[in-house]
Amino acid sequence: MPAMTSRRAAVLSIGNEVVQGFLLNTNSQWLARELGELGFDVQYHLCLLDREDDLVRRLKAALDEGLFIVATGGIGPTEDDRTRQAAARALGLELELDHEALHALQERYSQLGRPFPRGSEIQCMAPKGASTIRNAFGTASCFYLRRGEGGLCVMPGVPREMKGVWREEMRKRIVEDFGLSVRFYSRELKCFGLPESEIDLKVKHLLPDGSKSSVEGSILVDDAVIRLRWRMSAIRESEAYAAMQPFVDQARALLGDVVFAEGDSTLEEATVRLLIDNKLTVALAESCTGGMIAHLLTQVPGSSETLIESAVTYANEAKERRLGVRAETLARHGAVSEACVREMVEAVAAQSGASLALSVSGIAGPGGGSPGKPVGTIWMALKMGAKTAAWQMRMPGERELVKWRTARAALNALRLAALHGRPPERPTFHVTTVDAR
Amino acid sequence: MPAMTSRRAAVLSIGNEVVQGFLLNTNSQWLARELGELGFDVQYHLCLLDREDDLVRRLKAALDEGLFIVATGGIGPTEDDRTRQAAARALGLELELDHEALHALQERYSQLGRPFPRGSEIQCMAPKGASTIRNAFGTASCFYLRRGEGGLCVMPGVPREMKGVWREEMRKRIVEDFGLSVRFYSRELKCFGLPESEIDLKVKHLLPDGSKSSVEGSILVDDAVIRLRWRMSAIRESEAYAAMQPFVDQARALLGDVVFAEGDSTLEEATVRLLIDNKLTVALAESCTGGMIAHLLTQVPGSSETLIESAVTYANEAKERRLGVRAETLARHGAVSEACVREMVEAVAAQSGASLALSVSGIAGPGGGSPGKPVGTIWMALKMGAKTAAWQMRMPGERELVKWRTARAALNALRLAALHGRPPERPTFHVTTVDAR
Repeated sequence: MPAMTSRRAAVLSIGNEVVQGFLLNTNSQWLARELGELGFDVQYHLCLLDREDDLVRRLKAALDEGLFIVATGGIGPTEDDRTRQAAARALGLELELDHEALHALQERYSQLGRPFPRGSEIQCMAPKGASTIRNAFGTASCFYLRRGEGGLCVMPGVPREMKGVWREEMRKRIVEDFGLSVRFYSRELKCFGLPESEIDLKVKHLLPDGSKSSVEGSILVDDAVIRLRWRMSAIRESEAYAAMQPFVDQARALLGDVVFAEGDSTLEEATVRLLIDNKLTVALAESCTGGMIAHLLTQVPGSSETLIESAVTYANEAKERRLGVRAETLARHGAVSEACVREMVEAVAAQSGASLALSVSGIAGPGGGSPGKPVGTIWMALKMGAKTAAWQMRMPGERELVKWRTARAALNALRLAALHGRPPERPTFHVTTVDAR
Repeated sequence: MPAMTSRRAAVLSIGNEVVQGFLLNTNSQWLARELGELGFDVQYHLCLLDREDDLVRRLKAALDEGLFIVATGGIGPTEDDRTRQAAARALGLELELDHEALHALQERYSQLGRPFPRGSEIQCMAPKGASTIRNAFGTASCFYLRRGEGGLCVMPGVPREMKGVWREEMRKRIVEDFGLSVRFYSRELKCFGLPESEIDLKVKHLLPDGSKSSVEGSILVDDAVIRLRWRMSAIRESEAYAAMQPFVDQARALLGDVVFAEGDSTLEEATVRLLIDNKLTVALAESCTGGMIAHLLTQVPGSSETLIESAVTYANEAKERRLGVRAETLARHGAVSEACVREMVEAVAAQSGASLALSVSGIAGPGGGSPGKPVGTIWMALKMGAKTAAWQMRMPGERELVKWRTARAALNALRLAALHGRPPERPTFHVTTVDAR
């Protein structure tokens, strides 16, 4: 294992709205992952108010510790934006106007035919000696300065702008300036359909502690999606990938079709990919999911190659009219029944001619439950070729969670059918209870 | 304005996965809002690794500053959970077993017929003198301790558990113990359909700075939803509400039907509420939104009272078969055309008998665009009674954003129709560009 230089970082998010809870801070997570991939050990995230003195104190403390600070927010043109001023004071430097940046900004305004807003010059200032970093995504220019082991970079708080500046300019600058050669590489398997405890039992021996092995493994739970993750530091990506390969292979062998993707793919992406690769078309008949299954499939570019339609028959009347579900079936068994989902799936398959058809009906809550069919009771059916399977599941949670879990169970059913060429033989969802983060 | 005691708080989120960016921290935002409503001035959010010494140092610093610390995460049964131990050390207290909590936990395991896991006793320990707080949502018990002006409370990191403990036990405890009488109250109007700059221009004079007025007003943008918010501190809610009433009334008068809700309602909740109150039923014919409009409507409890169905006719073949769109229309004008959405809306209205019908067809991207119809081109139609309106919009952004904005524009069309009893007379979406956070 090559020795890692100890590069430590802190992620700062600045703005009253974030600290007061009126905006969700997604920047820190995103930047922490980016920094991790560059080989930085992120020490903490900190969200601070737009108070200059407090900012100066916090920035100084981090610089004194030799941290590389990535700060976002508070660099706009208004009076309450204080990050630029605070950074200069923490570094003990004067703020200086970048004439080139000012010229470019004035250009942009004149091209839009709008007057240059008074006070906007501040957006083109940076501490003397820092490098101004172009912001092609907004009006506030950014800056970067190395200081000892660490340093500081400052970017806008708007996620879209920040990500643009980071990807186009800032990351390159940091890689060059820190002479990054050794960095972290990671591989990840995503699983669905077994609870965490069972997966953990099967692959525990493949998840070594980082202190004892050059490859570090971990298990993460995000509702019912379980992620197995390995990482190691190396100079070359190929070297790290090769070292992690046996872990990935063995986990795949042990978990089989529970693994739905390697890397960042979502369950819907993996499902659409498999459907397209197998030249399968899909038609849906949705009741309790209210269109969510089709919505998730159509989040994926290219899904028009596989999805023909979804008949979202929310009212019983629509089930009868669109899908020919018999009034007698509804009267005798109710809409949430094996008989109903079987009629729904046969109808939508015949009407659409799709190679795969799936139907779902259930009780999302909060109303509509009964002792025999409590909230969370779900019936699902899948038809592929001449074979149809139907199964019942019980989804815990509130309305939104029931819909979300049911839609994922449906995606998983489509995925397993595409993979094996037949309807799934077991319910396609297992609840994972997370007891501690 | 009654004098506020200065109650200051810090929100700590503890866990390697959060700091390394593998989990999004949503707890801090949620807790910051809760604390704000109790009248605490939140100073910062901090995310820390599971390193005991570092935790001790940070907790001590916050306690020394007289802050009330709300910490989540790191209180599970595993070796890397260090928050419990760190809190005890920071307070200078021993950890002590809560026998009652242990007994209750053992009970739960025995009821589930599972053996009590070794090492789980740690989950029932709290610093001596702290109050153990019951956790009915998980296995890790929580604790609370007042110290001088501030203090400390510790809860699980899993959002569902944390929120449960906070709502059921912790909040009450804090309110009692701090003798909270004066607190912040806020009112909020949510707007949709005009860009921020136009709204700002209309109501700027109604958003006073907090330093000059007892009522503080602000404007917040979340994609196309604009929130106007007022807050003030008071002893009684009624007093604060009355003081803010003129601001709310005047803003409503100036903005008219652009305001869709007061308080926390989403656009879909406001829409479903209006539809139900006006005894209207809805049928949809969706193409590019892929079921998302129906999905959003059915997120709202009670939506089965208004939504009959959505025909998600993704393929052209489905548009012809389900909705009788003419092959000639598709050949001559394409699926993304006024002619097509008009045929779709007439068909779904006639088939369903719904009092309101809406259709949409567009190019979500990334493929499918052309010079005449670029990605983001959307046609929408709404039929109410004998009147049908159709309009075109251009949605900026990538596939997911185009779908999301189009679905919101559709909800807004339904809302305006329910409000005025006729189809909307203008496009129901305006882009808001956020330039600085």
